[in-house]
Amino acid sequence: MKHNFGAGPGILPQEVLKQAAEAVLNFNNSGLSILEISHRTADFESVVSEACSLVKELLSLNDDYAITFLHGGASTQFAMVPYNLLGEGETAAYLDSGTWASKAIKEAKFFGNVNVVASSKESNYTFIPKDYTIPADANYFHVTSNNTIYGTQLHEFPESPVPLVSDMSSDIFSRVFDANKFGLIYAGAQKNMGPAGVALAIVRKDLLGKVDRKIPSMFNYQLHIDNGSMYNTPPVFALYVSMLTLRWVKEQGGVAAMEKINNKKAATLYAEIDRNPLFKGTCAVEDRSRMNVCFVMDNPEIEKEFLDFAKKADIVGLKGHRSVGGFRASIYNALPQSSVDHLVSTMQAFEQLKK
Amino acid sequence: MKHNFGAGPGILPQEVLKQAAEAVLNFNNSGLSILEISHRTADFESVVSEACSLVKELLSLNDDYAITFLHGGASTQFAMVPYNLLGEGETAAYLDSGTWASKAIKEAKFFGNVNVVASSKESNYTFIPKDYTIPADANYFHVTSNNTIYGTQLHEFPESPVPLVSDMSSDIFSRVFDANKFGLIYAGAQKNMGPAGVALAIVRKDLLGKVDRKIPSMFNYQLHIDNGSMYNTPPVFALYVSMLTLRWVKEQGGVAAMEKINNKKAATLYAEIDRNPLFKGTCAVEDRSRMNVCFVMDNPEIEKEFLDFAKKADIVGLKGHRSVGGFRASIYNALPQSSVDHLVSTMQAFEQLKK
Ligand SMILES: Cc1ncc(COP(=O)(O)O)c(C=O)c1O
Ligand SMILES: Cc1ncc(COP(=O)(O)O)c(C=O)c1O
Ligand SMILES: [Mg+2]
Ligand SMILES: [Mg+2]
Ligand SMILES: [Mg+2]
Ligand SMILES: [Mg+2]
Repeated sequence: MKHNFGAGPGILPQEVLKQAAEAVLNFNNSGLSILEISHRTADFESVVSEACSLVKELLSLNDDYAITFLHGGASTQFAMVPYNLLGEGETAAYLDSGTWASKAIKEAKFFGNVNVVASSKESNYTFIPKDYTIPADANYFHVTSNNTIYGTQLHEFPESPVPLVSDMSSDIFSRVFDANKFGLIYAGAQKNMGPAGVALAIVRKDLLGKVDRKIPSMFNYQLHIDNGSMYNTPPVFALYVSMLTLRWVKEQGGVAAMEKINNKKAATLYAEIDRNPLFKGTCAVEDRSRMNVCFVMDNPEIEKEFLDFAKKADIVGLKGHRSVGGFRASIYNALPQSSVDHLVSTMQAFEQLKK
Repeated sequence: MKHNFGAGPGILPQEVLKQAAEAVLNFNNSGLSILEISHRTADFESVVSEACSLVKELLSLNDDYAITFLHGGASTQFAMVPYNLLGEGETAAYLDSGTWASKAIKEAKFFGNVNVVASSKESNYTFIPKDYTIPADANYFHVTSNNTIYGTQLHEFPESPVPLVSDMSSDIFSRVFDANKFGLIYAGAQKNMGPAGVALAIVRKDLLGKVDRKIPSMFNYQLHIDNGSMYNTPPVFALYVSMLTLRWVKEQGGVAAMEKINNKKAATLYAEIDRNPLFKGTCAVEDRSRMNVCFVMDNPEIEKEFLDFAKKADIVGLKGHRSVGGFRASIYNALPQSSVDHLVSTMQAFEQLKK
């Protein structure tokens, strides 16, 4: 058995994978693969509506919101958000807390003015900026809830005078938060929600239809919402597996249960990083992510050796992103506590080896 | 065993489905699912490069072309083509041969001027217009190679004074044609190439970078090309299964072999439609599609009865699109001759029943 700490596409629950494989051969006992059925069949329509209901239920969303599944990954959302919400000459506010935030900023500039209220770029994004004012005349304020690459996380969301928009690609469904405080939430599936190839957008309906710009169909939230995520052929399989994963989250006890498990996993791993003299964390302690745990070695020269050692212990995906170096242990919902315990034992075994 | 005549997502080869299901459990013997591996792994990078090589080889493309796999389905291409090739105030020419063509036209109008050179809309798209002139000052001329809904197909591509752009979603890899005559070819995967969730674009490289407009990253062909279809997380699984399907096409003997088989399937079915007094085709004979065979009954009142009869014979996906009514038998690459023979026998049995 592999221990999959990869940052994304990330680990999925074994039960989900089994059901997914079965559906590739025979979906719902139809005698057909999920890969070769029309998305307009009743069976698939009920997959989409169940997925939407699960999102609504897991996040306790009220009726102000529309839920839609889209092609294009989170990167397409970087553009779709301003395409739909930021008119030419208007201003949106962004918090620059990492690589993904800065990519979102770059795309927004194609559509209107961007006010970057704060940035931690100069310190290589090791912390979340907290000292800023959100301009009251901005169309929205965009934050990245979890910085997958740098391993920092917004543990509290700011009070915002304008609609709060968040890229939650790497921590959605991992913790309890008040989703009804947001204007728009989006996430690529491939960390906590499912496989690559589908993205989720949760849109407060009253925000749409306000910009002057004409929006091509595929980039228009309203059209996707009006068509129940079937304006065009959806990414059928990715959406199906996302639905299975959401079902699994619910079966585990929902987001509150996931949070409890995730907090324990994170606490276990950070405790070892802090205790073990060979390792150290890379981020401000108060901003440490409970999804992507970034750490390095005091002596960078033995990092490669530890990676090899971990690999022999069936640990995969541990190499840090090139912007940070060292290691990144992604401990998404589907990663069990036992894998974290195994990583900790491996760190301890390496410490012994080096004594 | 089901006989899957669905129009899309359509039938895939059984061998491909078996391999796909296996990869969902254990990809390339890695101990990990294809759904939970990083797209940056060597194993997946080689999937993408094999898929690109197969496209190049199967279509005998020369080095003027870049091949890229994209999110968003064919509908996103309706917008991406003019986003990248049609500056504001410039003109593109389009042939209006069906629903998809008219949707492509609609999206192009968001970006520049559209000259619709001919349309068969007034006759409910039962034929392909042939009497038109392509304006020599258009940026490109767009055609839909196969009209999935109406069951017509361009058996010959026009000589064009400007770059020819084609939506080949429903007949790519089904027949031999000179791909090197085109400026740009695109296709959603979910008919002849793989499952829903990925699209293919084949772009003559010299056409890019000519419009003034600033293009957001995800809508910019050049960026996807420069990043080897990994500007962002690609739709990993859909791309993998597409690669397997392309491999299968090659193993069958390539596009020439597929064409031979497809022509025989089409001939068998059209012969029965013409012979059987209960049924009749809906399109101009010379434009009949070899992928989507549309037909109705002389007596529409017994269409429902025939559909039920066919269903009992394990025939699925035969219901015609609401714009045409009656029946549509999609006979994509993966559909065997034996399924066509079975449909023909079923039509004959129904004829006997009605005698
Ligand atoms: C926080 C965050 N936002 C956006 C992205 C980009 O997602 P995609 O590759 O689906 O475009 C990622 C990918 O890792 C991410 O972690
Ligand atoms: C010829 C053609 N073009 C475009 C499309 C739209 O494709 P998608 O659903 O991937 O956007 C289809 C879908 O059936 C099609 O048949
Ligand atoms: Mg980041
Ligand atoms: Mg330490
Ligand atoms: Mg059509
Ligand atoms: Mg007849």
